[in-house]
Amino acid sequence: MTISGEMLIGASALRGSEREIRAVNPATGEKMEPGYAGGGAAEVDRACALAAEAFDSYRETTPEQRAGFLEACAQAIMDIGDELIERACAESGLPRGRVEGERGRTVGQLRLFAGVVREGSWLEARIDPAMPERQPLPRSDLRQRHIALGPVAVFGASNFPLAFSVGGGDTASAFAAGCPVVVKAHSAHPGTSELVGRAIQSAVRTCGLHEGVFSMLFGSGGTVGSALVADPRIKAVGFTGSRSGGTALMKIAANRPEPIPVHAEMSSINPVFLLPGAMARRAEGIGKGFVGSLTMGAGQFCTNPGLVLGVEGAQLDAFLSSAKAALEASGAQTMLTPGIYDAYTQGVSRLANNNRVETVAQGQTGPGPYQGRPALFTTTAAHFAEDETLLEEVFGASSLVVRCPDVQTMLAVAERLEGQLTATIQMEPDDLEMARQLVPVLERKVGRILVNGYPTGVEVGHAMVHGGPYPSTSDSRTTSVGSLAIRRFLRPVCYQDFPQELLPEALRDGNPLGLWRRTDGQLGRN
Amino acid sequence: MTISGEMLIGASALRGSEREIRAVNPATGEKMEPGYAGGGAAEVDRACALAAEAFDSYRETTPEQRAGFLEACAQAIMDIGDELIERACAESGLPRGRVEGERGRTVGQLRLFAGVVREGSWLEARIDPAMPERQPLPRSDLRQRHIALGPVAVFGASNFPLAFSVGGGDTASAFAAGCPVVVKAHSAHPGTSELVGRAIQSAVRTCGLHEGVFSMLFGSGGTVGSALVADPRIKAVGFTGSRSGGTALMKIAANRPEPIPVHAEMSSINPVFLLPGAMARRAEGIGKGFVGSLTMGAGQFCTNPGLVLGVEGAQLDAFLSSAKAALEASGAQTMLTPGIYDAYTQGVSRLANNNRVETVAQGQTGPGPYQGRPALFTTTAAHFAEDETLLEEVFGASSLVVRCPDVQTMLAVAERLEGQLTATIQMEPDDLEMARQLVPVLERKVGRILVNGYPTGVEVGHAMVHGGPYPSTSDSRTTSVGSLAIRRFLRPVCYQDFPQELLPEALRDGNPLGLWRRTDGQLGRN
Repeated sequence: MTISGEMLIGASALRGSEREIRAVNPATGEKMEPGYAGGGAAEVDRACALAAEAFDSYRETTPEQRAGFLEACAQAIMDIGDELIERACAESGLPRGRVEGERGRTVGQLRLFAGVVREGSWLEARIDPAMPERQPLPRSDLRQRHIALGPVAVFGASNFPLAFSVGGGDTASAFAAGCPVVVKAHSAHPGTSELVGRAIQSAVRTCGLHEGVFSMLFGSGGTVGSALVADPRIKAVGFTGSRSGGTALMKIAANRPEPIPVHAEMSSINPVFLLPGAMARRAEGIGKGFVGSLTMGAGQFCTNPGLVLGVEGAQLDAFLSSAKAALEASGAQTMLTPGIYDAYTQGVSRLANNNRVETVAQGQTGPGPYQGRPALFTTTAAHFAEDETLLEEVFGASSLVVRCPDVQTMLAVAERLEGQLTATIQMEPDDLEMARQLVPVLERKVGRILVNGYPTGVEVGHAMVHGGPYPSTSDSRTTSVGSLAIRRFLRPVCYQDFPQELLPEALRDGNPLGLWRRTDGQLGRN
Repeated sequence: MTISGEMLIGASALRGSEREIRAVNPATGEKMEPGYAGGGAAEVDRACALAAEAFDSYRETTPEQRAGFLEACAQAIMDIGDELIERACAESGLPRGRVEGERGRTVGQLRLFAGVVREGSWLEARIDPAMPERQPLPRSDLRQRHIALGPVAVFGASNFPLAFSVGGGDTASAFAAGCPVVVKAHSAHPGTSELVGRAIQSAVRTCGLHEGVFSMLFGSGGTVGSALVADPRIKAVGFTGSRSGGTALMKIAANRPEPIPVHAEMSSINPVFLLPGAMARRAEGIGKGFVGSLTMGAGQFCTNPGLVLGVEGAQLDAFLSSAKAALEASGAQTMLTPGIYDAYTQGVSRLANNNRVETVAQGQTGPGPYQGRPALFTTTAAHFAEDETLLEEVFGASSLVVRCPDVQTMLAVAERLEGQLTATIQMEPDDLEMARQLVPVLERKVGRILVNGYPTGVEVGHAMVHGGPYPSTSDSRTTSVGSLAIRRFLRPVCYQDFPQELLPEALRDGNPLGLWRRTDGQLGRN
């Protein structure tokens, strides 16, 4: 496939006329070809008009057609072959193995949603049959299904150029729900975006769908991104990125004449709680495992463990020694973009220069221009309580260990935390009572609680929650990873006393789609 | 039970110190005893503090405990006896039969949610078992359930002093989800509110729950209401009322340091589409049936049919003649409050004085000070297209018939509509093709579509949707009536590699609660 520097609007490809975006290879600092001229209001308008045109036909594709389309997207992404891997590596600085794994995750996600669409529970079919003889009033025949919200604006994320980008989880779940998608491609990996975008464009064509099912625009967040979220034909937003970016989109969406839901996955420091029993047995091993999680992928995960809480004493010292040794042996890694590298080094400097904070260790320096050195800091619970800036995410392989005088202080710190994607508990059976006090606090604060693991690595399945209270996301009632993500883009519609011929197939007598349906509240397959 | 003019904060009852609220009997215009002194910041703070304290224990009550509490609320409301009916009639001007029916609906709703809580599907338990041997990486054990969002602020509505008020659907569904509730009582029926509030307060006590599970405050929307929505311990809002009131709460919620979801059910004109086949057979009958729906309860329903679309000609004339006769025979009815009466008469005057609009008929005048006369107007599709004010809801028994040159114009008008709670299609089998064009448009615009019925009368069941796109509600992904309403107050949490003893019961091996659970995506009872 050749990449051309064009945006994709329906079946067309065209160059924008705004300022050119060019990827930077963060391993070398070199600017890459081609340039991507950004779009403007005209392109947003055209993409949204096509998406609105496509909506009614696309949302009524059969489960089999829609699942086939998701699978065709996956296959078309695989068919790009090595060019995609190479381009994504060059644009992101991520190693080949990681990018190959991410491609597997991306196509796996599309195929998971194909299965979800076929299984059909997302329709949530409900039937309350008529009761014509009921006293004092008869009951009408009432049937409910879920339908797609409408065209969705998806914002590609920098840190997963495949799995949270053009063909990533937001796009897959919106397509699965029956929503056309207009992607605002991330400026850090435009070539990767174009390759994946063209793959999806070809899948739309080969599946015979309306061209407006998919468009992809380049441009700045302030122009193309804002215009997209403000467009009246867009009915929901999926975003993964910074807190400032996400909250800006939330404000635009809330101030529209018709406000719309924004699913923004933003910032999280993912606290790790080291309970005494676990520390008594495994302090050194935990230190080493923790550094592995911290430094993976240069720490550029939403679920990176940026905060550790433990009880002061010999065991925490052993943890810190072990973590220090592991961290000092860790190489620097190329970060995703010059901007992310700058923000990371500033965040690390801020901690290093904070006189309430001690530096435990820094990792090795590296040869490239944007190599992030891992960093580990420590402070006391008292200092931590005094300094709100210590609650801020430093995106990258930096973490802060808070030394608490006792486990009750760990609980008190947990109560002070903002919403998080994850929290981790390191525990042994004798920590059970403490864990039972901690879990209810964490349930109120986070989307996923782990025991004796590390938060990096988000499984794509049915039970995953990649979400959590604000500011980790803009809406804690959902997840952006896993099959439940489809629900973000659905709404219920009730059909009262419809003749069979006019009912959607999902709700007809005899259950022609073989769905799980709720009849008078009881689940069954009738 | 005696009513005292007090607010209920947890187990306490106390008088506020702000401006006194006094119910007005709209049938007579007389002010009623006692006065209800409004609360202020201190009462909001105290109620929210108690709700936050109650949250962790209440949300972990067993399904049986929580269902028992909902049933105890229902029984305590019934136990108030005739005093409740009399007070609600006096404060609302609604006839006794209607209020008795509404009480039945209210307690039925509480009992429906008791059944929902026991059945347990709301937990949406999901288990993706560990796959320790998986290559290239093992899979962790991942389990998901839904938990309550946190304390909920509920705003009583004026038009259903029982079913959408202190113990109404928002409260019932929030309690069912495991959320403590702080009610901002509607100032139009403070005595009814106090009676129901005391019944719930007594149910909290007899069920041995934390007192903070329920509080009820009096006061103005601008002070108590705003402070409640802004309070950081409140995690969601349920509201039924005006568009201006709902959008004001949406803005407060969106501008909090931690934004929260608002479920506001606001304004709707509930279009009725008269298709030609139905009109050829039943024009007169439809006219009569329509007026019955329009004038029921003085038209003070969210689902009142405020807009009718038909094709110009003899059949529409027959419909209008029949509707005119029925309407002119309709008596005036006491409206809920002086304010609602004033807004209604202003809305009717605005239509009567609009030179693009003709008055078809007005109902009879009545003896009381706040008696609303039903009114029916007509205009052409061309005029309707030119005048945005004709899309505004007139709350009460007023409706506008739009005469369209053909059915394609009816479709075009449907495309122009804002979001609605309902749309109704009057049709016969020969209208099927037209209905097939209309339904996809309506699905995008409304929460419930009816065939050959009338929108007033909202069944409380599993398949009902009382919701719809903005501005009919603030969030189209939900309903405020029916069992799905529980989902507004829930969020998913994932538990990774938890030991059995630490897992919530819903997710333990062996399925001790006997729930429907999704294992690797497959529904079952294991």
